[in-house]
Amino acid sequence: MKAEYLNPFLQATINVLSTMAMLSPKPGKPSIKESDITVGDIMGIIGLTGHSEGSLAVSFSESCALKVVENMIGEKHEEMNEEVADAVGELTNMISGDARSQLQKVGFDFTAAIPTVVRGKDHTVRHVAQGGTTLMIPFSTDDGNFYIEASFSD
Amino acid sequence: MKAEYLNPFLQATINVLSTMAMLSPKPGKPSIKESDITVGDIMGIIGLTGHSEGSLAVSFSESCALKVVENMIGEKHEEMNEEVADAVGELTNMISGDARSQLQKVGFDFTAAIPTVVRGKDHTVRHVAQGGTTLMIPFSTDDGNFYIEASFSD
Repeated sequence: MKAEYLNPFLQATINVLSTMAMLSPKPGKPSIKESDITVGDIMGIIGLTGHSEGSLAVSFSESCALKVVENMIGEKHEEMNEEVADAVGELTNMISGDARSQLQKVGFDFTAAIPTVVRGKDHTVRHVAQGGTTLMIPFSTDDGNFYIEASFSD
Repeated sequence: MKAEYLNPFLQATINVLSTMAMLSPKPGKPSIKESDITVGDIMGIIGLTGHSEGSLAVSFSESCALKVVENMIGEKHEEMNEEVADAVGELTNMISGDARSQLQKVGFDFTAAIPTVVRGKDHTVRHVAQGGTTLMIPFSTDDGNFYIEASFSD
């Protein structure tokens, strides 16, 4: 995974969350993910192909997901139902789209697959890029935390 | 999702499981997935782009995953660790590759992203293809059940 990919994914996450969910997420320190441990309760995953092959995951705590979706669709949900999952999928799609648009400007063309959303406590996630590293960026908001992970073959 | 996609995914699953894991999975009746409910303990997910956008998920019960991985790598694992996750990711990759090769022969070109593997009891999964349907095919083996899901925008 190229270092140049970091900023587009970070910036896209801030852009989409602030535009679509009226939140101001503060990024923490990006790190190389060394284990499968995750902290989220709901996660959107989207595959990317083109300049290289990869995947992007966006994972929210339950409280953060419910706030994000409330702000996005103007409707409060008390539990993690299918509408919340659809909204997280759509958000993952938009973050991927914003990042791809920035990556294209610096010469890296990517196409996105469709998002898949996984819900469940205590799940672990592992990206299987041959020889690739997985980069993780944590974000904090007043309504809880979330993080993104990106992994690319090159 | 085109009806022509069904058989390549079904056949690829049988091909890969029988070649790589010496199992003879029996396919059940394919159906349109109407809800998020899943039955698996470990799932490989891979995004596809090209003729249309989609994703493929391959989900195993714990007992079936452990047997598949034992047969694949010739080493018995008692629990769902990172090596089991890597093997499930590789298997997902191979099923996608075999299906894409069959689809190419009938004029549908696809490129695959990298697999992501999710582990955890009681997780639910939802594919978010705009206007797309999700097709589910259950398989049974002497060592437990697994299923595949495929969802495409067209």
